[in-house]
Amino acid sequence: MTQTAESPAGVDSSVYEQVQHFYARQMQDLDAGRAAEWAETFTEDGVFAANAHPEPTVGRAAIAAAAAAATADLERRGLRRRHWLGMLTVTPEGDRLRARSYALIIETPRGGQAAVRLSTTCEDVLVRSGDGWQVQHRQVLRDDLD
Amino acid sequence: MTQTAESPAGVDSSVYEQVQHFYARQMQDLDAGRAAEWAETFTEDGVFAANAHPEPTVGRAAIAAAAAAATADLERRGLRRRHWLGMLTVTPEGDRLRARSYALIIETPRGGQAAVRLSTTCEDVLVRSGDGWQVQHRQVLRDDLD
Amino acid sequence: MTQTAESPAGVDSSVYEQVQHFYARQMQDLDAGRAAEWAETFTEDGVFAANAHPEPTVGRAAIAAAAAAATADLERRGLRRRHWLGMLTVTPEGDRLRARSYALIIETPRGGQAAVRLSTTCEDVLVRSGDGWQVQHRQVLRDDLD
Repeated sequence: MTQTAESPAGVDSSVYEQVQHFYARQMQDLDAGRAAEWAETFTEDGVFAANAHPEPTVGRAAIAAAAAAATADLERRGLRRRHWLGMLTVTPEGDRLRARSYALIIETPRGGQAAVRLSTTCEDVLVRSGDGWQVQHRQVLRDDLD
Repeated sequence: MTQTAESPAGVDSSVYEQVQHFYARQMQDLDAGRAAEWAETFTEDGVFAANAHPEPTVGRAAIAAAAAAATADLERRGLRRRHWLGMLTVTPEGDRLRARSYALIIETPRGGQAAVRLSTTCEDVLVRSGDGWQVQHRQVLRDDLD
Repeated sequence: MTQTAESPAGVDSSVYEQVQHFYARQMQDLDAGRAAEWAETFTEDGVFAANAHPEPTVGRAAIAAAAAAATADLERRGLRRRHWLGMLTVTPEGDRLRARSYALIIETPRGGQAAVRLSTTCEDVLVRSGDGWQVQHRQVLRDDLD
């Protein structure tokens, strides 16, 4: 059984590769402040939960608003932020995927020194959307918190 | 010649992708303190050599014991450690693979600031094991040491 | 349409994977000081532009000379440098590829502490070369500069 699918970029690829490419696009959208495109990478009822937040962010509109607010805050503080995902494992569960990865946030002040800001894990439930994937549920756990 | 194989996760993939996925699982096992699962990613007679160690660690039992000791030490010191592998090159040599990568260790103290702890290179000889791969020989070289 | 090709390493792979593997080899060449091999990963008329440089470096000979000078400078200063590329997106444009990625530079002084030195983005135009790829145009943007 060969699982291949036409990706949004028009390049055939396996599921593992599709998920790698999906995350790269998603992180580039987030870090470039494209809040609407970022929110489109979640399902309409997508959930973003984090051990740093008292409550999960629920639904695409709330997810877009949170990203826009974070982007505005970073601009005000003169910071560029890059999200790196790595050490990705992908496990099919029925027609969904469970994707677990590490995520680093790298921050650079304008005219200043880049540094690691946070190390986290990210556990997603991904569902098919057309020829790509969307996050239905994300759980981010910061390594500095219990 | 298309090299594909059913990976443990049930997703068809090329050799390069299999090795990426193998390392992601292996690093997640190590960082989660799953010493037995980590040791299973080496052959029974696997060797772990490092320029930071006077002697190589030889055999799965010794490799498991070293991982368990490192995990206990990190817990005692309140540290979370993440191993990232990247810039992976894979070269077939007969029925083995020579895999060379960079590895970063990121450490986060409980309640504290994440930071890069070490930068290393990692050169592995990988051999087939069922539908996956195992490390037969690993050589880790820390960038701060000669 | 399945896009596969025999890579230089003799392992069939998709375009996305080929580009990942290409960058891994390219960064290992650069960081090992193999200036000629590094320059061969660019086209004869390849361009390396960066917001940190007043002028782009044009042509393979100039690109090799710049790498050799950087290597000599790092050796004099007792530094090991590792370039990590990640969050790679690849978009076909005719018979070329537009590849966008993040790049981190990690530096380790001999006997000292590894640290993130720079965070950048890297946008390449890649063209086919035999069964692999070459950079025709690279634009590196440091996150600390406007």
